[in-house]
Order: sequence, then structure tokens, then C-alpha cells
Amino acid sequence: MTIDSNISYQQTTQVTLASYPDTYPSEENFAVNTVTLPALQDGEVKIKHTFLSLDPYMRSQIAGRHVSGSIELNGLMFGEVVGEVVETKSAKFNLGDQVRCMGGWQTASIQKDSAVFAIGNIEQPSHALSVLGMPGLTAYAGLIWQAQPQAGDVVVIPAATGAVGATVGQLAKANGCTVIGIVGSDEKVDYAINQLGYDACINRKTQDVEQALDKLCPEGINIYFDLVGGDLLHSVSARLAIGARVILCGMIAETNSKERMAGPSPGMWIKARAIVYGLVVYDFEPRRQEFIDACAELVNANKLIMKEDVSVGIASAPAAFSRLMRGENMGKVIVKI
Amino acid sequence: MTIDSNISYQQTTQVTLASYPDTYPSEENFAVNTVTLPALQDGEVKIKHTFLSLDPYMRSQIAGRHVSGSIELNGLMFGEVVGEVVETKSAKFNLGDQVRCMGGWQTASIQKDSAVFAIGNIEQPSHALSVLGMPGLTAYAGLIWQAQPQAGDVVVIPAATGAVGATVGQLAKANGCTVIGIVGSDEKVDYAINQLGYDACINRKTQDVEQALDKLCPEGINIYFDLVGGDLLHSVSARLAIGARVILCGMIAETNSKERMAGPSPGMWIKARAIVYGLVVYDFEPRRQEFIDACAELVNANKLIMKEDVSVGIASAPAAFSRLMRGENMGKVIVKI
Repeated sequence: MTIDSNISYQQTTQVTLASYPDTYPSEENFAVNTVTLPALQDGEVKIKHTFLSLDPYMRSQIAGRHVSGSIELNGLMFGEVVGEVVETKSAKFNLGDQVRCMGGWQTASIQKDSAVFAIGNIEQPSHALSVLGMPGLTAYAGLIWQAQPQAGDVVVIPAATGAVGATVGQLAKANGCTVIGIVGSDEKVDYAINQLGYDACINRKTQDVEQALDKLCPEGINIYFDLVGGDLLHSVSARLAIGARVILCGMIAETNSKERMAGPSPGMWIKARAIVYGLVVYDFEPRRQEFIDACAELVNANKLIMKEDVSVGIASAPAAFSRLMRGENMGKVIVKI
Repeated sequence: MTIDSNISYQQTTQVTLASYPDTYPSEENFAVNTVTLPALQDGEVKIKHTFLSLDPYMRSQIAGRHVSGSIELNGLMFGEVVGEVVETKSAKFNLGDQVRCMGGWQTASIQKDSAVFAIGNIEQPSHALSVLGMPGLTAYAGLIWQAQPQAGDVVVIPAATGAVGATVGQLAKANGCTVIGIVGSDEKVDYAINQLGYDACINRKTQDVEQALDKLCPEGINIYFDLVGGDLLHSVSARLAIGARVILCGMIAETNSKERMAGPSPGMWIKARAIVYGLVVYDFEPRRQEFIDACAELVNANKLIMKEDVSVGIASAPAAFSRLMRGENMGKVIVKI
């Protein structure tokens, strides 16, 4: 049965990869096509997508070096969506259910019911892609479950106003830490300090980051939530306090290049007796509800915020993604479909 | 009071640093002198040294980049010794007590009683410097307390017949792991397999280590106990299994150079969801007895062995240390005084 016999969602408009970017992607690397969906099979649901999440890891998928898979030329771009069940041949889902799935950059999709999840007790559907979704879970898993922050810890966060970074920072503040952000514009410095409550924030484009860290963290850095890799990981590793924790989560600094960068000298980590964790958020999917339950109240009370950078229409996705890769977004990038 | 009025140990023969080696140390970098010990003060003991431990970390002390301190030009070489109390102004120690302390490369020393420790339930005194001493504690802390081996784990160990490596390997075997050693001679390969019970051992001077690891570890490496740093750390990091643990403990590969080497790309550790631990054995001193109690029975039953590479006389220390730095030792290097 369909939710509305006049609107059967037989077609989907898709964004595909038209060519491989050498460095930063631009709109011309993508194409938009409309195709007809196949008939629904038993155990499947048809989902009308309402929001699509755009994330830095997608650049690694394009480059063929992401753990979650690679995008083929002319293939559909992968991505998580929230949406509404508009046709069902599954006993697990009813028409109108609010769900999330890896629906990709398109307006509708057919999914096996085992790959579809109710968004549950999340009040605002887009939150299932942002503060209470994958970026939030990434932040929570790395900071709370891996790094285990203690009151008084000095926490340094690059990309500090991005979807993951901003959540790390707010959770660290909620746990009594001193939080130092690193960002790429004065506008982001202002947002980090005045909206997210950071203790300090460094503009890496106008300040000497190492000098600023020396001044702001005279007793060393207890937790570094690495979202960028590159030179900054070296600079921070040389300034770790004894017993520091480093969360290796992303490498924006090398995401848009074809080369892999070397890491810091192990000697710096030995000296700090650091514990360094490789973080892949998918490993924590079984604990997603635990994270949502821990954070939903903070979100509803506006104590854990995530700015959503929303563009409208599936055709806006390539431009929005290109802005994200150039660091021109402000908060979690979402496409409203 | 003294233990024997005819032998008052008023003098000590010392080895000092005569010049800084550029790369590998040799005997000419050291000098031997005899000096008079001062009078014993309240709270002090005089110790006649019987065994001196020589260890790779001393090269880093010479280079001025070890957490435990630096050796000054013409300064006494640091080092742990076992010995016997021959004069005491401390209520904590009696004449004849078998003790250990950081006595340095010399034949006797005066120590504050707070810096002296009874060797306790260790039957053979030299064991307090070897299998039940700092090298053993290093191996136990890194493997058992940090890496937490599970039966079936594939454990790779460079410098696999050295004091630390050989203990890691035997403890890993005792915990049901598959153990792969990497060494620098066929003699050491033979020792690793036939004496230490390793499952396999690679001669890095005659074999292609990466090819050998691919063949020996088709499902990846679960634990890497890094004692060498350098290129091998890159090669192993590219071959880690999901959930791998890497213990960063030593950097022999760069110990004898003035430059620091870069580490592996963080992306390899993210991909493996690795947990990487910086290990400094001093942090585990409070748990030394726990380690001794756990291992003494294995040692007494000859199930945990450590070959001791013993030279005789304090004046033999420079040559013995130089051999250690060139990898020409076989087992734990100890000077019998």
C-alpha cells in the first residue's frame, strides 16, 4: 500500500559522481539525473527522503580510501538521510514512520528493512543527522568513551566549529574541561567562544598556532581530538601532558590530496605516555541509543547545540559539499529535500 | 658500623662519559676513574655493587632526550645495580641486605635509603636486573597491562631476542598467542624459535620483512610491541588487524642518530581502530611486586628464561654497552662487578 495514491514516488532524482576531483571538489564533478525506482519487494520499504547529511568522509570515499567503501565513476553518492516511509512491504515499518538509512544523495530510495532504523525519541528529524546523529555519536564515542575526560583536562579541538568538533567542545565543557578550539576564520572564533562556550579559540590563518598553544596550555594538552591530521598533529603531539589521550578521527589536511602524510615521531607519544585511539564511528553503532539517551536532554534544553548549515533541494548538494570541503560551511551541512 | 672492618669500601671505581658519540658509541667515549666516597650520613646506606644493568635507554640519556635525565660530559653514567649493604645509617636496611638502586656505572655508592629497594623474593640477584627487573617489568606492563593479549592474537616483536623482546614473546606464548619475532641474525632466529618457543622469526638482514609479514600474518597483526621505531613501525602499521594494540616502547632505529624520525600515517591507525600506548616503565614501579609475584614461578620453573650476556669488571662496561648498541649482544647485558 502507498501513503497517497496520487503521489507514488516512482522516481528519484540522484546526484552521481561525474568525474574525480584532483584536489578540492566543485559542482562540475557531479551530475544530476532522475531515474525510475524498481517495484518494491517483500521485506523492503520505500522512503521519501527529507534531509541528507553531507560530511567530510565523503571526500575519502571519492578518493577510494574510506573504510565504508568507494564511489564509482557515474555512481550514486553515498550518504545518510532521514525520511518518511511512503510504501512498505515490511512488518517492521508502517506508513509515515520517521526513519534514517544510507539512502544516498537522492530524493527517494528503496531499502531492505534491515538497513532502516526508526529515529525514535528524536524530536527534530534533522537532529538524527546532526547533533543526535553520526557527527554527535562520533564526538561522544571519542571524547566520552575513549578519551574519558576528567574535570580540569585541557582539551584541544581543530575544526572546532564543525559538526563533530563543536559537539566535542560542548561535551568537554559539560565535563568540566578547559576547551581550546582551532578554526580558520574570526567569525568561527567568535562563534566558538560566544555560542559554544569555548575558553579560547585560535585562528590558524592569522595566528602562530604553536605560540598560541604554548601560551594557552602552559601545562600541556590532556586531550586532542584530531579531525585534521597533518602538521597540527605534530605541533600538538609535542605539547601533550603526561597521560594525554589523542583521538585520531579525521584527516581533513590530507583529504583533498592524493598523498598520505607521515605522522608525528613516536617519541613524543612515549614521552607523554599518551594513549592514541583510532576512531571509526561505525564501531559504535550498537551504542547509538545509549548516546542519544545521554544527550537528548542536553539538546532539548539548548545546552548542546549544533548549527545546521541547510541548503534546499537535492540539486544543491554538490555546491554545499564543495563549500564544506573548502571550510566555508558554518556547522553541520544538511540538504533539505 | 661496617660489615668487615678490613674492607670498608671507601673508594668507588666509576665509568664516566668522556665524549659524546655522533652515532654508535665506542670504548673511547668513556673513561674509568677511582674516587673516594664521602662519609655516610644519617638515613644513608653504602652499597657494594655486584651487578650493573646496561640498557638501550642509556644511549638516549647520552643524547639528552630520555625522560629519566641526561648524562653530562665527564659525568657518571647512570644505571641500575644490585648489591649488598656494607654500611648503614638507616633503620630500614641491615648489613648484608640484597638491594637494588640507581647506583650508576661504578663499584660502590652511597644512597639515601628512600632510593634503595630490597630485592625481596628473587632467588638469583642478577634476575632483579633482568627477567624480574626493569626489562621484565617493561615487557609485562606493555603486553599484559596495556595490550591485554587474547588467546589467538598474532603478536609481532622486533629486537625479539633482546631483554624486553624475549620476555614479551614468552609471555605472549604463555597467553596463547602466535608470536612472530624479527631479529638481525640467523643465530638469533634459531634462539627465538628453539629456545624462546616463537612460532616464527624473520631475519631482517636477509629477508624482505614486509613480504614475510604478509605471509606469516595473513589476517593482520593484533599486537605490535615496538622497540625500534623507524621504517618497521610503518610496515607493521600498514598490516594491523582491526582492534590492534601498538605499544610504543623504544626507538633503537633512531637511538644512535641525532634526528627524530616521523611516525606512520595516522590513517593506518584509524583504519585498524588501533589503540597505541606510549610506555615508560617508570610509571609502573608501584606495581613491580605484582609483576614479580606473577612471574617468579614461571622463572623458577624455567618457563620464562632470559639469557644474560655477562661481562666481568666495571671496566668492561663501555665495550659491553657498545656491543649492545650494535646489536651484538645475546640477551640481557649485565656487568658482574
